[in-house]
Amino acid sequence: MANRKLRFFQNAYFTKQELDKVSAFVRDSGTTLILPYDQFIEHDCRHLEAESDSGNPDYIMQLGIEGKYNAVAIHYGLAKRFWKKYKNKIPLILKVNGKTSIPSQARALSTHTSFVEDAAEIGAAGVGYTLYYGSPREDEDIPQLARVRKECEKYGLPLIVWAYPRGEAIDAKGGRDSSYALESAARMATEMGATIIKSNVPKAAPKGFLENSAVPEYYKKVEAELSGLNPVQAKRERIKRVVKAAQGIPVLFSGGSEISDEDLLNNAKYCMEGGCFGFIFGRNMWKRPKDRALEITKQLLALLDEQRA
Amino acid sequence: MANRKLRFFQNAYFTKQELDKVSAFVRDSGTTLILPYDQFIEHDCRHLEAESDSGNPDYIMQLGIEGKYNAVAIHYGLAKRFWKKYKNKIPLILKVNGKTSIPSQARALSTHTSFVEDAAEIGAAGVGYTLYYGSPREDEDIPQLARVRKECEKYGLPLIVWAYPRGEAIDAKGGRDSSYALESAARMATEMGATIIKSNVPKAAPKGFLENSAVPEYYKKVEAELSGLNPVQAKRERIKRVVKAAQGIPVLFSGGSEISDEDLLNNAKYCMEGGCFGFIFGRNMWKRPKDRALEITKQLLALLDEQRA
Amino acid sequence: MANRKLRFFQNAYFTKQELDKVSAFVRDSGTTLILPYDQFIEHDCRHLEAESDSGNPDYIMQLGIEGKYNAVAIHYGLAKRFWKKYKNKIPLILKVNGKTSIPSQARALSTHTSFVEDAAEIGAAGVGYTLYYGSPREDEDIPQLARVRKECEKYGLPLIVWAYPRGEAIDAKGGRDSSYALESAARMATEMGATIIKSNVPKAAPKGFLENSAVPEYYKKVEAELSGLNPVQAKRERIKRVVKAAQGIPVLFSGGSEISDEDLLNNAKYCMEGGCFGFIFGRNMWKRPKDRALEITKQLLALLDEQRA
Amino acid sequence: MANRKLRFFQNAYFTKQELDKVSAFVRDSGTTLILPYDQFIEHDCRHLEAESDSGNPDYIMQLGIEGKYNAVAIHYGLAKRFWKKYKNKIPLILKVNGKTSIPSQARALSTHTSFVEDAAEIGAAGVGYTLYYGSPREDEDIPQLARVRKECEKYGLPLIVWAYPRGEAIDAKGGRDSSYALESAARMATEMGATIIKSNVPKAAPKGFLENSAVPEYYKKVEAELSGLNPVQAKRERIKRVVKAAQGIPVLFSGGSEISDEDLLNNAKYCMEGGCFGFIFGRNMWKRPKDRALEITKQLLALLDEQRA
Amino acid sequence: MANRKLRFFQNAYFTKQELDKVSAFVRDSGTTLILPYDQFIEHDCRHLEAESDSGNPDYIMQLGIEGKYNAVAIHYGLAKRFWKKYKNKIPLILKVNGKTSIPSQARALSTHTSFVEDAAEIGAAGVGYTLYYGSPREDEDIPQLARVRKECEKYGLPLIVWAYPRGEAIDAKGGRDSSYALESAARMATEMGATIIKSNVPKAAPKGFLENSAVPEYYKKVEAELSGLNPVQAKRERIKRVVKAAQGIPVLFSGGSEISDEDLLNNAKYCMEGGCFGFIFGRNMWKRPKDRALEITKQLLALLDEQRA
Repeated sequence: MANRKLRFFQNAYFTKQELDKVSAFVRDSGTTLILPYDQFIEHDCRHLEAESDSGNPDYIMQLGIEGKYNAVAIHYGLAKRFWKKYKNKIPLILKVNGKTSIPSQARALSTHTSFVEDAAEIGAAGVGYTLYYGSPREDEDIPQLARVRKECEKYGLPLIVWAYPRGEAIDAKGGRDSSYALESAARMATEMGATIIKSNVPKAAPKGFLENSAVPEYYKKVEAELSGLNPVQAKRERIKRVVKAAQGIPVLFSGGSEISDEDLLNNAKYCMEGGCFGFIFGRNMWKRPKDRALEITKQLLALLDEQRA
Repeated sequence: MANRKLRFFQNAYFTKQELDKVSAFVRDSGTTLILPYDQFIEHDCRHLEAESDSGNPDYIMQLGIEGKYNAVAIHYGLAKRFWKKYKNKIPLILKVNGKTSIPSQARALSTHTSFVEDAAEIGAAGVGYTLYYGSPREDEDIPQLARVRKECEKYGLPLIVWAYPRGEAIDAKGGRDSSYALESAARMATEMGATIIKSNVPKAAPKGFLENSAVPEYYKKVEAELSGLNPVQAKRERIKRVVKAAQGIPVLFSGGSEISDEDLLNNAKYCMEGGCFGFIFGRNMWKRPKDRALEITKQLLALLDEQRA
Repeated sequence: MANRKLRFFQNAYFTKQELDKVSAFVRDSGTTLILPYDQFIEHDCRHLEAESDSGNPDYIMQLGIEGKYNAVAIHYGLAKRFWKKYKNKIPLILKVNGKTSIPSQARALSTHTSFVEDAAEIGAAGVGYTLYYGSPREDEDIPQLARVRKECEKYGLPLIVWAYPRGEAIDAKGGRDSSYALESAARMATEMGATIIKSNVPKAAPKGFLENSAVPEYYKKVEAELSGLNPVQAKRERIKRVVKAAQGIPVLFSGGSEISDEDLLNNAKYCMEGGCFGFIFGRNMWKRPKDRALEITKQLLALLDEQRA
Repeated sequence: MANRKLRFFQNAYFTKQELDKVSAFVRDSGTTLILPYDQFIEHDCRHLEAESDSGNPDYIMQLGIEGKYNAVAIHYGLAKRFWKKYKNKIPLILKVNGKTSIPSQARALSTHTSFVEDAAEIGAAGVGYTLYYGSPREDEDIPQLARVRKECEKYGLPLIVWAYPRGEAIDAKGGRDSSYALESAARMATEMGATIIKSNVPKAAPKGFLENSAVPEYYKKVEAELSGLNPVQAKRERIKRVVKAAQGIPVLFSGGSEISDEDLLNNAKYCMEGGCFGFIFGRNMWKRPKDRALEITKQLLALLDEQRA
Repeated sequence: MANRKLRFFQNAYFTKQELDKVSAFVRDSGTTLILPYDQFIEHDCRHLEAESDSGNPDYIMQLGIEGKYNAVAIHYGLAKRFWKKYKNKIPLILKVNGKTSIPSQARALSTHTSFVEDAAEIGAAGVGYTLYYGSPREDEDIPQLARVRKECEKYGLPLIVWAYPRGEAIDAKGGRDSSYALESAARMATEMGATIIKSNVPKAAPKGFLENSAVPEYYKKVEAELSGLNPVQAKRERIKRVVKAAQGIPVLFSGGSEISDEDLLNNAKYCMEGGCFGFIFGRNMWKRPKDRALEITKQLLALLDEQRA
């Protein structure tokens, strides 16, 4: 039913146009699993070190199709040169901004690798945008996102915001993986009009970090609240808090660096329990050998399709 | 009567178009009470620490409606995803610029989170813009505001300028809460063509501050004039001076950080006596438990509706 | 007669369109007296310290009308909210750029507070633009002025350039009040296509300044030429030199900081003898008590209307 | 056959429009040899030191025609003033960005010397763009390239990306000639939508370089893998890796600084074996005496036309 | 004959449109003499120190007309206010960019004082643009020039590029008057599509300069080649080299600082022998007493008209 399928889109207002597009990459169970493959811009070629044909866009498309992913999230070059060959088999989220990890990240800003108009022309089901929450160049990032949002509305395209804390001030005040920073970033994406938010799973503050004088009182308080819980409880709570910060805008969690099958599935379970809309798992999938990737994908989909709503 | 209703708009020229829109968020008594909720961009998520459901936009809309606020002032994401559900019940002021408090504020500039065209399309009754008076980046802020003003005229939308002193030079010369800086900022908003000005309530100079060599003679003189008064008299005088600086452009005062019920109502009374047009109280409302918020709101509205004109 | 009225516009080519507009703020005697009131952007609120109602735009408009000034020069907010009420009684010069004195002035740039299109729409008789001659940001200032000039041509509006030396290099090489800098600035305005130039009255180099190694030989030579004259002769000569530097583009002199009646009238006389087109006197007028301001204005007008051509 | 001719364009999707243009500068054997002559912008006039008439664009055009090159790659001035005279005899790749080597290269950015629209109007068969992979100004470079790519699509023009690692961070982390950097740069070009990629032939890390703390683990690993090979094997492997990084987007190798005939032909052979699409050899051609340049060109063409596919 | 008249435009391709305009400022002998008068922007007012009425634009126009100059090269303000009065008597080259010498020249960039559209509207025969070859801001200069070139094509206007080495890197590596820098700058102008190039006459490296570590090997080699010649031979050779660097784009030489009649005429003779298209002599003309300026102009014209082709 439409109701079940779009159950994550009932706590806030969405236009009919964007929900029509969203439907293209949502499972009948209302959840989604997206295969991101923008890392060859973000991280040089380091992910070629893999037990799979990780550098090959054709491989990725096939993995996405065979694994029954709901979409791939890629930059324009790959969309044009590779996805186009598979376009009826897997929907496209066009990532419209990016940067490398080569220069200093202290004042990170991710700029256009393509445009929303490209997404519309090529037949994308959605647009991806990376917001570097808290970066000293947020004064350029925020209006850039506002224009992307406006363009998405023009073409009726859903906007997925990668809500990533980043930059020297975040490093000093919270750390990019902190609950403090990730919750605030998710909220920022809601404030900016995201259709869907992508977040990383928050982590506890590194030992001693909270003693830095730049750390805000609020962050200390958040950590104090969570410090009484055991690690699993704390992780669950951190996940729930991000979902809550987004206030009804569906949240996708990413997988981050490569982890074990068990950790991956456990994390996924906690995320589902925490109310997440789905996953956007890249490295953990396309760097595994194909058979293992397909196997774990299958388990993940089962998890996503468990009756819950 | 229109006359009583628009009595704060009689000391300067306003177009018929903007007054029509203004009427939507003015009380019959000619005053207004606006509920601002842009703090989740400006201040990370720290305001989740509250005795209310402070992070929930639905809660805010309901508080605004139940409390009979004259408008909510929010960013585009919340307007699109939440306000839209309540749009016939409470008018919208769309805040079109914002920034976080994460990076250095020394060269503060607040950039577009949405555009005046968005305000027109979504059905806003007005536009909010933050001007960082005296910031080293005023060279970007001033023309940005000029363009917003021009766009507001195009759509017939009233422009509310948050007239906020900010940046390293203000910190050295006056302090963001000084009469010196707030009066000058309010005046700047008038010079730029604001329809309505939002100001903070000025405070006395911190002890010893006036001895800094960067402090202008004029600021010292202002403080000398006020130093003979008792604290309440001084506060009243400071408020009147801001209203006077605006020269007929109606002034809203904000509540600032959370204060006690008594202080809040006293401050409000002084502001009313000082000739203010109304209030824009956020944290002091939505961080209180709902019943207490509604109670104090009621008292505030009574104050606003007292016969005065 | 048109001839006498436009006698200051006969040494260079002006379009019929711009002269038609110029006529609106020129006296029959061919001179002009303009009341500038942009100082509440440029100088915070310090000019509220006055024996008049100096902060009140209505007061200024009335002073302008009663004093028979030929125009007021103000920013857009005041034009829209106040001048509009008096628009048939006194012409408007719309000042389209401005900045505060709060941040560092080392790299001064004055940016748009409104646009030439606003001037045309509101019915201004002319446009005012501040050029910071010699500022390190002249690379932004010069093309901004070029675009303003082009827009003025489009709407047939005369362009009055405030030709102000400014910035760290001027401070090191000449000083903003030097003949060296003011003559060069006036000439720059001519080169850029000004219709009318506003200059300050130059002053002798401060004691010892010429010994600085950054001071150009040419400046030293200028001062050497003038050093043989007595102060009054020197002042007359300095004024003449600015008028000559402008090469037929009419020059208005400003009054600068507040001075005594006698000094003001003497300065004015020297300026008239030096061939100036008129005056743009603000603080010296609207900070005096109204009766004294009107009295001195009257004397000034008499001076301006003395038979000379 | 078209098949053989466009055999390098079968591993990814290309539009019919761009392949039509590509055909103009591809040999029947499916390969290409391009004569670049943008070095008089990039390298001052140092290449006048040559045994040929190296500074003379007419000479270059004639060399290109006599040598049966498939295209010349030049900036707009030379295209307009010189190529136009030969336009039916040799296709044009218009290089649309450039910079000199005079100022610091630490934050290199290559900006427009002409525009894609110029390429279309003058009748170019393709567009050349230099991407400085990893430069601190990649935030300007990436969207500039995105816009060039978009314009190329508008006019149906193939886009050749000079994928050049550059800037202070590359110098610290990899070196502009490293496999690490060149592979990542080639991949970046693919991600951005290049039709064809130009790369330099990678070199081994300079002695001791890998011990620098800034060098990424991945780079060390790459070098470790290659360290067991003899120099010729290693060179072949490095070439193959760049071709693989491009993932089906054809790769041209450049000649770099002047080398001996033998080295040039050997390098070319390794590149062909590595799967490259062709060569873009400038200095090694037009700085040789014409007869030797023609002779070696002939040998190179023979190599390019050897049956392989 | 057209042939003789346009003989300097036969070594490269020029459009019919631009040659029609060029014809307006070329002598029957095929050469040209242009009177530049942009120095009152570039050099403050220092050139008022002269034995002529050097600051007076009318004087300049009259000098140009009486001296039978082929064009004046001035900024827009002078063109509009003064040249317009003489427009049928002497053609106009509109200089569209400029800067003062007041701020630091380390990162020189010359920005728009007017636009190519202005040149077309006012009836100019050509456009002048200053390129600061090698400046750290060449990344802004180069695309600005590319757009000016494109606009010139749109209006069919010839583009004269002032090819001036400038900025901290040039100062360190070559010096703005070096053969090394001037040849490279002239070549850059050719690469960018100039119709005509203006160069200064190169000078030998200052004593000891070549020992600086920043000086490129190529520059040292150039100087070594020229060091065997006597000063006159060397000067002739330096001139020829600039003309050669331009590769068929006609070169005008400027006069630079004021020199004696004899030096001026000797220099001019060497330039003519070196194949230059003509001269653009300002200070050396309008700072001389008028009779001497006219006398030397006459001699210069005789030189320009000597049978040579």
